[in-house]
Amino acid sequence: MVILIQCKDSIGLVAAIAQVIYESNSNIIAMREYVDIAASRFFARIEIQEATNTEALKARLKQVLPSDADIHINPSPDKKIVVFVTKEYHCLSDILVRNYFKTLGASVECVVSNHAVLEDICKRFDVPFHCISHEEKSKVDFENELHEIINNYQPDYLVLAKFMRILSADFVERYPFKIINIHHSFLPAFIGANPYKKAFDRGVKLIGATAHFVTNDLDEGPIITQQTIPVNHSFTANDMVRSGKEIEKAVLAKALQYVFEDRVFTYENKTVVFE
Amino acid sequence: MVILIQCKDSIGLVAAIAQVIYESNSNIIAMREYVDIAASRFFARIEIQEATNTEALKARLKQVLPSDADIHINPSPDKKIVVFVTKEYHCLSDILVRNYFKTLGASVECVVSNHAVLEDICKRFDVPFHCISHEEKSKVDFENELHEIINNYQPDYLVLAKFMRILSADFVERYPFKIINIHHSFLPAFIGANPYKKAFDRGVKLIGATAHFVTNDLDEGPIITQQTIPVNHSFTANDMVRSGKEIEKAVLAKALQYVFEDRVFTYENKTVVFE
Amino acid sequence: MVILIQCKDSIGLVAAIAQVIYESNSNIIAMREYVDIAASRFFARIEIQEATNTEALKARLKQVLPSDADIHINPSPDKKIVVFVTKEYHCLSDILVRNYFKTLGASVECVVSNHAVLEDICKRFDVPFHCISHEEKSKVDFENELHEIINNYQPDYLVLAKFMRILSADFVERYPFKIINIHHSFLPAFIGANPYKKAFDRGVKLIGATAHFVTNDLDEGPIITQQTIPVNHSFTANDMVRSGKEIEKAVLAKALQYVFEDRVFTYENKTVVFE
Amino acid sequence: MVILIQCKDSIGLVAAIAQVIYESNSNIIAMREYVDIAASRFFARIEIQEATNTEALKARLKQVLPSDADIHINPSPDKKIVVFVTKEYHCLSDILVRNYFKTLGASVECVVSNHAVLEDICKRFDVPFHCISHEEKSKVDFENELHEIINNYQPDYLVLAKFMRILSADFVERYPFKIINIHHSFLPAFIGANPYKKAFDRGVKLIGATAHFVTNDLDEGPIITQQTIPVNHSFTANDMVRSGKEIEKAVLAKALQYVFEDRVFTYENKTVVFE
Repeated sequence: MVILIQCKDSIGLVAAIAQVIYESNSNIIAMREYVDIAASRFFARIEIQEATNTEALKARLKQVLPSDADIHINPSPDKKIVVFVTKEYHCLSDILVRNYFKTLGASVECVVSNHAVLEDICKRFDVPFHCISHEEKSKVDFENELHEIINNYQPDYLVLAKFMRILSADFVERYPFKIINIHHSFLPAFIGANPYKKAFDRGVKLIGATAHFVTNDLDEGPIITQQTIPVNHSFTANDMVRSGKEIEKAVLAKALQYVFEDRVFTYENKTVVFE
Repeated sequence: MVILIQCKDSIGLVAAIAQVIYESNSNIIAMREYVDIAASRFFARIEIQEATNTEALKARLKQVLPSDADIHINPSPDKKIVVFVTKEYHCLSDILVRNYFKTLGASVECVVSNHAVLEDICKRFDVPFHCISHEEKSKVDFENELHEIINNYQPDYLVLAKFMRILSADFVERYPFKIINIHHSFLPAFIGANPYKKAFDRGVKLIGATAHFVTNDLDEGPIITQQTIPVNHSFTANDMVRSGKEIEKAVLAKALQYVFEDRVFTYENKTVVFE
Repeated sequence: MVILIQCKDSIGLVAAIAQVIYESNSNIIAMREYVDIAASRFFARIEIQEATNTEALKARLKQVLPSDADIHINPSPDKKIVVFVTKEYHCLSDILVRNYFKTLGASVECVVSNHAVLEDICKRFDVPFHCISHEEKSKVDFENELHEIINNYQPDYLVLAKFMRILSADFVERYPFKIINIHHSFLPAFIGANPYKKAFDRGVKLIGATAHFVTNDLDEGPIITQQTIPVNHSFTANDMVRSGKEIEKAVLAKALQYVFEDRVFTYENKTVVFE
Repeated sequence: MVILIQCKDSIGLVAAIAQVIYESNSNIIAMREYVDIAASRFFARIEIQEATNTEALKARLKQVLPSDADIHINPSPDKKIVVFVTKEYHCLSDILVRNYFKTLGASVECVVSNHAVLEDICKRFDVPFHCISHEEKSKVDFENELHEIINNYQPDYLVLAKFMRILSADFVERYPFKIINIHHSFLPAFIGANPYKKAFDRGVKLIGATAHFVTNDLDEGPIITQQTIPVNHSFTANDMVRSGKEIEKAVLAKALQYVFEDRVFTYENKTVVFE
């Protein structure tokens, strides 16, 4: 069982939390704690052996923590996700394979796309596929259709696994810190469309990928993880796209692992990730 | 002996070049060749055993190559550099140590700084140090003083090893593709001042460094090499500065090696680097 | 069209080869050449625009090259492979996905396993699956069954994608430099079984994976590519296994790309890889 | 102030420690805690604001911890080291530069070498240099001379910065977990002499370096940190040596930082490193 705590920092927090857990007869298997001194914020992730009563533990923690404390107890690792894609298969396939072999840490409830090309791979894995075209309709209408599907599944997270439509502020606000995107550059370099083309034109010697939570500012949400790999002068823009796909799927997989294992906090447009 | 050739691409160039070298009784130890098909540019780096006559070889190559051919024959590896610094020691010290042990691939003629703090380390290595303050004078006057010193040494390259003044267009134009800078970010992210502060504020999960030739556009010149290293939420901006220094000195050292070994071509604000 | 040449080194080889190609009215798109000076071996990979006559080109090259020259002209990128697995899905799935989306650079003719657990994933991708148990039979009999299946498909390469049986010398000799294995360590560290357990016991701070051609010496064949990733004290042996799988599938994918794109030479138990 | 605690694991340890620190009116700036469940060992590193009384704090901690608890309170970051070298300058110079600029985290009391070639660089930094030849004397005599010098300085650690003599068991036992070595391979690959030659002969595609504590088993002591970098077929053994030096000095610098900042525990021939 994992306990996540975020609150204003104050003296004695670790002692207080550890005492409560000790009194609940639980053993701490792993504890990670971090204080952002400048922001005076306290973060803790505690893994304990199964507790008898989640509600009682939460109530007891509330008593000893500052009033602003955000306490999240996850009694089970089962999470549900909806995956959004457009035409590229590499991130989706990686997710579908892990989902099929039960190593994703979440279950893929369905896949939503504005194109039909990835329908077959979803069918092969018996995952529902919903094709919602964005053409010949307003963004509001398009997103309402998305909402409707999402509502049917009640997912914990939406995963944008190379979904090439920009979501509206209204849409994003309905899922605060619940939308995870993979961007095909080492942000903040190359925000927006065609990052590999921009990388090629700039003559960079490395390309990268960034997994982040989606906020209203395009590609500006809190970064979960990111990586780079070397390229050289002989790479065409297409070569960069091809190499980049390998890192995109690796970075997204890593970010999803962190999120699904309850290792990620968000605050001030940043993340704390207890790897 | 190293031969560098850049020209318009055309059919049969490799055969023509190889034939000329064969006829000069030289053996090719290593040959690297690259064609930018989109730009129709041909690049070759050929390492041969010592030739008897550099001028004759160049003349013969001119005959068989397109008229725009840029042929550079470097009969000796001896290059001279002037190093510019401000207050940070890590890149300079790395250069001074390699210079002292004759593994830099160039000789440090002198060090120029707008502050005095690095004078002692230069003295310890018997390298002339010139302190030229930028204060209480115009940029033109400041740069004229720099020019004067540079002229005394006739260096092949100017190395900005954490020199924190922005050079004017006039200054830069006098040393086309002869000024190498280390920038403390993975460009094009975080152009300009205080990149680590910006990286910290953005909450990135990696930081980097970029060595590039200086042009009139700030931090926009052709990139020679760049690298990144992971950081996490626990890094303060100062921690990023500290970690970043390790990679800055490594990236600059690598770029200098490439340049001093005649492995770098520039064109269209990009580099071809035969590693 | 790709031309691979390996032969004894001698003066003028590049000129001779380039001249032959020029005379065949082909344009060199990319040429990579390497001489192992100590071994006096010459290697070249030349990519040219489609030639009219492969046989004529090969004959002409033979005339100008040393008599020991090994010339390989690959007029088409179509290769066939048979994949061997045991129980782990990660490498196989990655191959099956690329195969399905036609980006593998080869076609998976069938999958052979000594266990049945991966049959379903193969069926989902319409790839024939042959379960050949190794139990209650001699190694000779087991391998004869493998041969029989392989013979039905006439593959260019056998890919051991986490196949946990050691193949006999007799078997390996029938497929010289045609068997590619992924080993779950940075060879030559941790040869043989249970490398992650050994890595855990040794307290290493990085783990790795190695793709190599299989020879009669266990895990001693020519290395194609290898990578490492950091681990730390908090990793159990199982955590290393989990993290290692990510790098195993990446390393195998990279090695297969090199091999299928005709970028790999073997000699003296080493490889030359023109990346 | 840093507190290091290692002891048998038991329930409530974090609560007990945090309570003691809370009662001492100290604030925890950072706390890292790890339990090796298999070994039932508990490790904690606590950074607190300056305490009034180190002895009282230690006594109070002893009361609440298991009787086997190893408690180490470091009231000051000042550490003293003696550096051992042979002929290679890269690691030593890096240490001398950091020492000179007060960023090493320890002070270099002197440098000891069995050759004279690095005397001049030490003199330039005003660091005492002792040349103790190993020739024409027994190992016992040689090491007795080393002991004598070491005794004069009373260092906290001995740093073998490319010291090419193997120390005897007797010598090593006098400095348990106090001798730090940089080995020029990714251990456990290429134990012993000439690792780059062995790496070259094996045709590896990456080389590395390992910093470890020295024990009686050659190159088998607890690993502190290690890294690798890619190489390819074009690297001669000497090229590997040259590239390897860059990573050797980086790995040793990182290991020294961890040790000097009291981030490293040793147990069972492994380390726990709170990075």
